[in-house]
Amino acid sequence: MSSPAVQTRADQASAPNGEDALTALVGLVREDLEACNRQIVERMQSPVALIPQLAAHLIAAGGKRLRPLLTLAAARMCGYRGDRHVRLAACVEFIHTATLLHDDVVDESDLRRGRASANAVFGNQASVLVGDFLFARSFELMVEDGSLEVLRILCGASATIAEGEVLQLVIQNDTSSTEEQYLDVIEGKTAALFAAATRVGAVVADRPVAEAEALDAYGRNLGIAFQLVDDALDYSAQQEKLGKTVGDDFREGKITLPVLLAFQRGDEAEKVFWRRVLEEKQQEEADLPHALALMQKHQAFTDTIGRARMYGDKAIAALDGFPDNAEKRALVGVVEFCIARAH
Amino acid sequence: MSSPAVQTRADQASAPNGEDALTALVGLVREDLEACNRQIVERMQSPVALIPQLAAHLIAAGGKRLRPLLTLAAARMCGYRGDRHVRLAACVEFIHTATLLHDDVVDESDLRRGRASANAVFGNQASVLVGDFLFARSFELMVEDGSLEVLRILCGASATIAEGEVLQLVIQNDTSSTEEQYLDVIEGKTAALFAAATRVGAVVADRPVAEAEALDAYGRNLGIAFQLVDDALDYSAQQEKLGKTVGDDFREGKITLPVLLAFQRGDEAEKVFWRRVLEEKQQEEADLPHALALMQKHQAFTDTIGRARMYGDKAIAALDGFPDNAEKRALVGVVEFCIARAH
Repeated sequence: MSSPAVQTRADQASAPNGEDALTALVGLVREDLEACNRQIVERMQSPVALIPQLAAHLIAAGGKRLRPLLTLAAARMCGYRGDRHVRLAACVEFIHTATLLHDDVVDESDLRRGRASANAVFGNQASVLVGDFLFARSFELMVEDGSLEVLRILCGASATIAEGEVLQLVIQNDTSSTEEQYLDVIEGKTAALFAAATRVGAVVADRPVAEAEALDAYGRNLGIAFQLVDDALDYSAQQEKLGKTVGDDFREGKITLPVLLAFQRGDEAEKVFWRRVLEEKQQEEADLPHALALMQKHQAFTDTIGRARMYGDKAIAALDGFPDNAEKRALVGVVEFCIARAH
Repeated sequence: MSSPAVQTRADQASAPNGEDALTALVGLVREDLEACNRQIVERMQSPVALIPQLAAHLIAAGGKRLRPLLTLAAARMCGYRGDRHVRLAACVEFIHTATLLHDDVVDESDLRRGRASANAVFGNQASVLVGDFLFARSFELMVEDGSLEVLRILCGASATIAEGEVLQLVIQNDTSSTEEQYLDVIEGKTAALFAAATRVGAVVADRPVAEAEALDAYGRNLGIAFQLVDDALDYSAQQEKLGKTVGDDFREGKITLPVLLAFQRGDEAEKVFWRRVLEEKQQEEADLPHALALMQKHQAFTDTIGRARMYGDKAIAALDGFPDNAEKRALVGVVEFCIARAH
C-alpha cells in the first residue's frame, strides 16, 4: 500500500504506529486539552435543552480533538505561556462540529440509508440549527478573546470551508471533474480549518508574521494530507477497523482522488462503468468490489497515499524555522499519525 | 380585526396605509440603502458560482430589506455621519438571509409539499452551505468594521436566533406549549436580530449606553410585534394578497399565538380537534376552514393583533428620549407599517 518508489521525510519520521504520535501529542498538552474540553462542555450549554443534547451526541462521541490539539501544540511550540489558546482551541472544535452537523444534513436519497448520524437521530432541522448555534457560539468565544486578528483568521476560514463544501456539491457525480477542482474542494473543506487552527497558535504567542505563515503552511499541507488519506480510506478495508463503512463516498458519487485517478487511467469500458455508478448512480452489489479492483489495477489508492506523503513532507518542512522542542516533535508526529492511518 | 377596547399609541400614529410609512423610511435613507445593496451583491460573490446564484435567488427576490433599513435609520437618527452603518446593515441582511435559508431546510414530510424555496430549487445541502457562507461572510464584514462591541452584539444575536429556532422545533406539534414559550421563541428567532440591528446604530454613532439600550428595546419590541402580526397573517385571507399561502403554519403544526389562544379557550371537543390536526398531524381538507372558524369564535386573531399593538406601543415609547427628527418619525412609522399589514 506504500509507494516504494519515493522515500519521503514522512517515511523517515514514521513511528511503527501512528497512534503513538497522537498519544505523545496528547500527553504533552494534557492539561490544556482538559481545560479545552471543560470549555467545550460549558459553552455548549443553553436553556434550550435540545442544544446541549444534540451537541453532546457528536462532541461526547469523542473524535480525536485533532484540530484543537493542533492549536494547543502550535501555541506552546511558539513559547506561549498564557491560556487564551485554550478558548481558541474550543472555538476551532465548535466550528469543526458545526460543519460536521451541516455535512450530515442529507437530501432525500441519503435519508433512505438511515445512518445513526445526529440528523438521523434528531432530524435535519435540529442538526442545522444546533450547527448554527455552535457556529455563533464559536464567534462569541472569539469576541471574548478580543483579538481582531484571530477573528479575521477564523471567520475567513469559516467562509472558505463553506465555499469548499459547496464546490464539492457542484462537482459531485461529475467524472469530468479535474484533480485541481478536487484539491480546491479539500483545501476549502478541510485544510482551511487546519491552517487557521495552527496559525492562531502563532498569533496568541505574538510571533512575527513569518512564523504565523509557516504554521499556516504546516496546517494547510497537513489538512490536505489528512483528507487525501481519509478519501483513500473510504475505499480501504482498514476503514472497517475504524468502525466506518467502506464505500460511502462511492454510494454518494463523491468525486475523490482515488476515483479520479482510476477514471482517468481507465479504458473506455471502465469509463462507462464509472459514469454509470457515479453519474447515473445506477449501482448494483458487485459494483463496489469492481470499483476497488479497478483502483488496485490503476494504483489509484497507492498514488493517493503518495500524494498525501508529499503534502505531509511539505507540512514538516514548514516547521523548519522553528527551534527543536517537544511540541515541534509532536507536530511532526501528527503528520506521521495522519499518514500511518493508511497502513 | 382591530381591538376596539384599547386605543393604543400605534393606533394614534397609524397612517391610513402602512406601506406609506415604509416608503417614507426608504426615501429618507435611499442613498445608504443603495450603497448597502451594492455591498450585499459585491460581498456575496465567490469563485464558486453556485453561491452567488443561490444567494441571489433569495436576495434578489427582494424582500423589504426591513432589518438593514432599521440599522441605517437608527444610525442616522443618532446623528451618525460616516458610512460604517452601510456595511453593518449588509451584515444584518446576510444574517437574516442565512437564517431564511436554514429555516427552509425541510425534513422529509415537508419535502412533499415542494415549495419553490431555495432548497426546493437547489437542494437542502446547497441551502445549508450557502447559508453558512453568508453567515461567515457577515462576520468577516464585521471584522473589517473592527468594532468588538458590534461583533459582540451581532454574534450574540446569532446565537440567540439559533436558540429561538431550536425552541420552536421543540414545542412544534405540542398544544400544551405556553404563551411564555411562544414568546421565548419569537424573541429569539425574530426580535433578537431586530434589536441588534437597531442597537448597532447607536454603537457606530458612539452614543451612550442608555441610547443603545433604548434602541435595543425599540428593535426587540418591534420584532415581537412584527412576528405576532406575521403569525396572525398566516391564518388570514390578507396573506393571499402577499402572494403567500394561508395555513402553512397550520399544516406544519407550528405553535403560534392564534393557535394557542384558540386551543386554550376551546372546549374539550375543540381541544380534541386541535390535538388531532397539530399533534397527530391528521389533517383533512375541511380542517383549515374549521380552524379559522374556531379562531374567529375565540377572537384569537383579534387578540393576537392586540398584543402586537401593545408591543408596538412599547417600541414607540422606547424612542421617547430621542429628539424629534425625520429618522425618528420614520422609525415610529415602521411600527405602523408592521401592524397595518394585519388590516
